[in-house]
Amino acid sequence: MGAIRVAINGFGTIGKRVADAVDAQDDMEVVGVTKTGPSFGCDLAVKKGFPLYCTFDDEAAVSRFAEQGYVCSGGLSDLLSIADVVVDCAPGKMGAENLAKYQSAGIKYMFQGGEKHALTGLSYTSSANHSDNLNAQGTRVVSCNTTGLSRTLVPLYEHCGSLKVECTMIRRAADPGDSNKGPINAIKPVLKVPSHHGPDVMTVKPEIEINSLAVAVPTTIMHVHSIIADLPSGHGLTTENILELWGNTPRVIIMNGSENRITTTAEVMEMARDIGRKWGDLHEIFVWEDGVKLVGDRLYYFQAIHQESDVIPENVDCIRALMGTESDWKRSVAKTDAAISRYYGL
Amino acid sequence: MGAIRVAINGFGTIGKRVADAVDAQDDMEVVGVTKTGPSFGCDLAVKKGFPLYCTFDDEAAVSRFAEQGYVCSGGLSDLLSIADVVVDCAPGKMGAENLAKYQSAGIKYMFQGGEKHALTGLSYTSSANHSDNLNAQGTRVVSCNTTGLSRTLVPLYEHCGSLKVECTMIRRAADPGDSNKGPINAIKPVLKVPSHHGPDVMTVKPEIEINSLAVAVPTTIMHVHSIIADLPSGHGLTTENILELWGNTPRVIIMNGSENRITTTAEVMEMARDIGRKWGDLHEIFVWEDGVKLVGDRLYYFQAIHQESDVIPENVDCIRALMGTESDWKRSVAKTDAAISRYYGL
Amino acid sequence: MGAIRVAINGFGTIGKRVADAVDAQDDMEVVGVTKTGPSFGCDLAVKKGFPLYCTFDDEAAVSRFAEQGYVCSGGLSDLLSIADVVVDCAPGKMGAENLAKYQSAGIKYMFQGGEKHALTGLSYTSSANHSDNLNAQGTRVVSCNTTGLSRTLVPLYEHCGSLKVECTMIRRAADPGDSNKGPINAIKPVLKVPSHHGPDVMTVKPEIEINSLAVAVPTTIMHVHSIIADLPSGHGLTTENILELWGNTPRVIIMNGSENRITTTAEVMEMARDIGRKWGDLHEIFVWEDGVKLVGDRLYYFQAIHQESDVIPENVDCIRALMGTESDWKRSVAKTDAAISRYYGL
Amino acid sequence: MGAIRVAINGFGTIGKRVADAVDAQDDMEVVGVTKTGPSFGCDLAVKKGFPLYCTFDDEAAVSRFAEQGYVCSGGLSDLLSIADVVVDCAPGKMGAENLAKYQSAGIKYMFQGGEKHALTGLSYTSSANHSDNLNAQGTRVVSCNTTGLSRTLVPLYEHCGSLKVECTMIRRAADPGDSNKGPINAIKPVLKVPSHHGPDVMTVKPEIEINSLAVAVPTTIMHVHSIIADLPSGHGLTTENILELWGNTPRVIIMNGSENRITTTAEVMEMARDIGRKWGDLHEIFVWEDGVKLVGDRLYYFQAIHQESDVIPENVDCIRALMGTESDWKRSVAKTDAAISRYYGL
Repeated sequence: MGAIRVAINGFGTIGKRVADAVDAQDDMEVVGVTKTGPSFGCDLAVKKGFPLYCTFDDEAAVSRFAEQGYVCSGGLSDLLSIADVVVDCAPGKMGAENLAKYQSAGIKYMFQGGEKHALTGLSYTSSANHSDNLNAQGTRVVSCNTTGLSRTLVPLYEHCGSLKVECTMIRRAADPGDSNKGPINAIKPVLKVPSHHGPDVMTVKPEIEINSLAVAVPTTIMHVHSIIADLPSGHGLTTENILELWGNTPRVIIMNGSENRITTTAEVMEMARDIGRKWGDLHEIFVWEDGVKLVGDRLYYFQAIHQESDVIPENVDCIRALMGTESDWKRSVAKTDAAISRYYGL
Repeated sequence: MGAIRVAINGFGTIGKRVADAVDAQDDMEVVGVTKTGPSFGCDLAVKKGFPLYCTFDDEAAVSRFAEQGYVCSGGLSDLLSIADVVVDCAPGKMGAENLAKYQSAGIKYMFQGGEKHALTGLSYTSSANHSDNLNAQGTRVVSCNTTGLSRTLVPLYEHCGSLKVECTMIRRAADPGDSNKGPINAIKPVLKVPSHHGPDVMTVKPEIEINSLAVAVPTTIMHVHSIIADLPSGHGLTTENILELWGNTPRVIIMNGSENRITTTAEVMEMARDIGRKWGDLHEIFVWEDGVKLVGDRLYYFQAIHQESDVIPENVDCIRALMGTESDWKRSVAKTDAAISRYYGL
Repeated sequence: MGAIRVAINGFGTIGKRVADAVDAQDDMEVVGVTKTGPSFGCDLAVKKGFPLYCTFDDEAAVSRFAEQGYVCSGGLSDLLSIADVVVDCAPGKMGAENLAKYQSAGIKYMFQGGEKHALTGLSYTSSANHSDNLNAQGTRVVSCNTTGLSRTLVPLYEHCGSLKVECTMIRRAADPGDSNKGPINAIKPVLKVPSHHGPDVMTVKPEIEINSLAVAVPTTIMHVHSIIADLPSGHGLTTENILELWGNTPRVIIMNGSENRITTTAEVMEMARDIGRKWGDLHEIFVWEDGVKLVGDRLYYFQAIHQESDVIPENVDCIRALMGTESDWKRSVAKTDAAISRYYGL
Repeated sequence: MGAIRVAINGFGTIGKRVADAVDAQDDMEVVGVTKTGPSFGCDLAVKKGFPLYCTFDDEAAVSRFAEQGYVCSGGLSDLLSIADVVVDCAPGKMGAENLAKYQSAGIKYMFQGGEKHALTGLSYTSSANHSDNLNAQGTRVVSCNTTGLSRTLVPLYEHCGSLKVECTMIRRAADPGDSNKGPINAIKPVLKVPSHHGPDVMTVKPEIEINSLAVAVPTTIMHVHSIIADLPSGHGLTTENILELWGNTPRVIIMNGSENRITTTAEVMEMARDIGRKWGDLHEIFVWEDGVKLVGDRLYYFQAIHQESDVIPENVDCIRALMGTESDWKRSVAKTDAAISRYYGL
C-alpha cells in the first residue's frame, strides 16, 4: 500500500503544524491544504511544496488565487477527491457543514477539539483510546487541555483502576500571534461552574471521574493545570512511583523547577525553543518534578500545556488509527515521534 | 475611657490604609506613624495630621527628618510609650526583632499576615475567632488570602459542622505600585505542594480541613480563588441557600457577572472605584453569583480578593478585641464598617 | 443669576467624572444624567443624587427603568429642556446625531475629544484658548492627549513665540475596567504616519507646529509622551527655567523620579491614589524632573497622562467659558481646582 | 587555509545563537563554548557537538562538570589556545577582565553591545563599517538597537550624504525566558535624556547625527523604534524611493501591515516562527510599508527589532572582517545569510 493521502482543510495555527508533522512521516503525505483566499499564509504552503486548494468550491474564489500569483489546484471537493482522509482544521462552528462534505466525498475525517464530541460521536487521544478508533470512519482529536490531562491521568488510572479528579485550568487568554484579545491586566473566571474542560476527558476515557474550573489570565504562551487526583485506597503508590510512571509515559517531560531554574512557563517555553522544533513548539506535557506530592491518597500536581502544539502528534497517530495501519498505540507514538525528531534534527 | 491610642509602625501599603481606617473610628485614634527616613511618603502623614516618628531610635536618624522639612516627634520607643496598642506594618522578616520592642514597651501588639503564626501563637480574623483574641496581649491579623477564605468558609462551616476544602489561588504577581517584579508573560506555580496558603485558615478556625495550590500570574489588581468545598452529607443546603448565607455575611459582595458585565477582576475593581473609598479599595470579598454551584455535596465557587485592602477593617476589629472593648464580633464589624462608610461619604 | 444647570448625556468613564466635578462647584449643578437603560451604573447616579434620564425619548425605553426599580425622570429631550448646557459624554460616532438634538433644544453644548473638530468648528482647552470660547454656542473639549500636550507646550510657546514639536505617544491599549481589548504581549504602531494625535493641538493653538507618531502597549493605566520641542534661537531658556515655568503652570506636577522612586507610571498612579481623589484619578500632567533636558535649542522630555481624567477639570472651565461667567482662564482654573480639592478633603 | 577556529565565551541567549550561526558556515567552525558550571544549558552544547569548556581556569571548577556527567575539555585558557578568534558573549561588566585574557592569549576578539565602545575603541556592524574592521585585533559588535538603526539609516545616509535623526525606542522590558523582571502594567521612561541608545550609532557611522529617548514596556518579544529622520534638502527621494532603497538592503523586511494583517509585533513574530529559524528568530529588521511617510524633508517610520537575534549574522560577518578573509561587506552578508538559510531549510 502507498502512503496515506492526507488533506488538510484549513492552514492556520493547527493546520500548518499538522501538515508539517504529516510531512515528516514516511507512511503518509500531504496531498493538499486549503486557504479561503490568497494571503500571506499561502507563502508557507508554497515554500513547503504543499498543493494549495480553495476552501470553497466556486470558480470565482478559486481564480482569485491566480490573480495574486498563487497556483490554486481547485476547490475543497477536488482536494477531497484525491485524499484518503481529511484533517479538519477549520475555525470553530463550521463542523456540521464540513461533516456533510466529508461524508459526501466518502473519505475518512478528523475534527479538532473545538468541535463537540456529539458531532462525530467518537473522540481520540493516543494514550486513551487508540483501539476504539481503529478503522472508524471519522473522529475528533480532543483539545489541547483534554490531551494534556489524558497524558498524565490515563497511566494513573490504568495503574489504580479508578480515579477522581478536580482540575483548575489557568489558561492563556490569547495565542502569541493574536493581538486583539485581552485582558491586559485582569483574571477572567469561566462562570460556567464546573467548566466543560475536565469532563471532556470522559469522551476518551469514561472511567475517569473529573470536573474542572477555569480562568483566563494575561499570558500568551501556555496553560497551567492545577490538579488534585484522589487515588483509590490500596493503590500502593508513592510520589516517587508516580514520577517514575510518568517518566515512562510518552510525550511527558518531567524536570525539576528549582534545580533547572525552570520556575515559570517562560523558562519552559525557552527550553522548548532550545529543543529546536519549528515554531518553538513543545509537543510534550511539562510536569514540575518538585510540584508533585502525594498526601495520603490525594495527589497534587501542576502541569503546563503548549496550547498550540500538544495535539499535533496525536493527529498523526489518529490518521493511522482511522486507516487501520497501526493497531498498537505505543508503536504509533514511537513512530510518529521518531520521525518528527529526525525531521528537525533533534 | 478615652479613645484607644494606636501606633502604626510602618506607613506603606498596609500601614497607610490601617491608619486611615482607624482615623475613621470614634473609639480610637492614631497617635503616630513611623517612617525609616524623610521621603515622599511622609507627605501623606503630614496631610492627614498623623504625628511622624522614626522607625529607629537613634538621634541621627531622627534628625534627618528635620533636614528635609518634616517634624519628627521621636523614635519608635517614644511612639510606643504613648500608645495602648501598636499595629506592626513593617516589611516582612522584622517580626522577631519588633516583637521584643513591643513586649519591652509593655503594650499590646498586632502583626500582619506576612509574619508566621508561631511568632505570636495567636491569629485573628473577625469572622472566625474574635472571642479567642479578647484581651490577648498580642496577635497576628491573618493575610489577605486567609481573610478572604475565612469570610466565605467560616459561615459555611458554622452551618454544616464540618468542611473539607481545596483551593487553587491565582495570585497577582505584583501590587499596582510595584514596577520591578515580573513575570510579564508567564504563569509561575508555587512549587511547594500543597502550598502554605490554605492551611493558614486553620490558625483561626482549626476545624476546617483545607489545602491549597498556588500560582502567580501577570496582573496587579486582585487574587482569584478557585474553591472546592465538600460539605458533610445531610447539610440540607442548595446553591441558593449558600448564596443567601453569604448575602447575610458581612464584607462579602455577591454580584451576577453576566447581568452586570462584571466578567473579570478588571470590572470588579472598576466597581470598587465607583464605590469611592480611598485608593479605590475593596474591603469586601467579591463572589460571582453565577460562578457558584453545588453539585451533590461538592461546592464549586470563585472569589476575588483585593490584596491591598481586605484585611484593613479586620485590623480595626482586632484592636477592639485586644483592648477588650467589644466582645461581639458582629457588633465590631458593624461599627467599623459604618464608620468607614461615613468617612468616605458612601 | 442662579447656578448653571448642566446636563450630562452619557454616564460612563468620562460622564461620571464630569458630573462629580460639576457637583463640586458652587456656580453650577447637575440637573440630570442619561443612561441607555437600567443597569448597575445607575446605582452610582442614585447614590450621588443625580436625576436619571433615558438616552432615548421613547416611552417604552423610559419605562424599563421603573421595572428595575430606578426612577427615570424622562427622555433626553426632557433633560435638555431644563438645562443651560449639555456635556456630551456619549460613545464616539454619535456626534452628528446628538448635535442636531442639542441645537434643536436651543441650549449650549460641549463634545469630548472623541469627536472631530469639524463637528463644532471650535475646540477648547483651558490653557490655550479659553477666551476664544467665551459665549460660544458649542465647542469640543479636546482629548486627553491634546489636553496633556497643551498643558506643557502652550506656556513654552507663549514664552518663545514659536515652537516646532515632534511627539511619540506610547499609549495604554485599554482602560483599567476594559477586559476585552489586547494586545497582551505586543507593541502596536498606529500605521497612519504621522498620526492625528499631535496636530490636534493646532485646533486650540494653531501657532504650534506639531506632528506625532503613536503606538499602543499592554498597559492600562497611563499614556506616556516622548517629546522633542525645537525652540526658536534666542529663547534664552535653560532646563531649569523650563522646569520653573512648568512649576508655575496649573495642572502640571513635576517630581524627581530618582529621588522619589517614581520610576514608572505604576508609581505615578500610586502617588495619585495617595492624593485621594475618587477613582484614584490624576487630573494633573506628570513630568519627570530628571527626564527634562535642553540640548542646544532642542528640548527633550517625557510626560505621563491619566487618560481617564485629565480632561475633567477642563470640562468645568469650558462650561464657564460657554456661559460667559468667567472670562479669565486662570481664575476659572483656580476656582475649579480649589472646589475639587475641598470636595475630596485634599 | 582551513576553517576559522571560533571560541564562544558564554553560551546563553546570544552565545548559543552565535554558535549555531557559525556552525552553519563553511569557512569557520566552533571549537568550543564555555559554561560557568554543569547545568541544563550544557545539554544543548552536547547535542550540537560543541566541545564544552569551563569559564574559569581552576581545576576544581572544571572537574565539577564530570560530576554531573558532562565532558569538560578544560578552562577558558585551554579554549583560547586552540582558537583564532573568541566571541565574547559573557554577561555585561566582565569586559575589562576578559579583554586582558584575550590579549594575553594573542587571539582576535569580539565583544557584544552590552560593553562600551571605549573598551575596544572600535565597533562593528556589517552595513556601516566592515572595511574599518578588516584585520583589526579586536572589536565590539554593536547592540540590537544600534544594529537595527544602522540597517535602515546607513543606506539613507549613503544616498543623501547627511542625516539628522531622532528616535524613540519602545523597548521590551524582559526577554521571553526571563520571568523575574517587570513591570507588569506600567511604562518606564529611561530618565537619562537624551538616552545613550541612539548616539551609539555614531560609533560605527560618525557622520549620522542622532539622539534618542527610550521607554520600557510590558512585553517580551520585540523593540519598536519610532523614527524621525531629516534629509538634507535636494535629496530627491520620495516615500516610494525610500521603500525601494530598503527593499534592496540586506536584512531588512518590508511588509504592508494592513494588507497582511501584521498590525503588531505579535504578528511579526508569528511570521518569523513560520520562516522556521531556530528559536523562532528574526534576524531581519521589520519595517511596516504603510508606516513610512516622507513629509517635506522629514521622514517618519516605525521598525521592529528582534532583540535576541538581529545581531547574530553580524557576528559572523565580523569574524570574517577581523580575520581579513572577506573584504566586501555585501559578499560576506550574502554568504552568511545563504548558509543560514540552507542550514534551516528555508
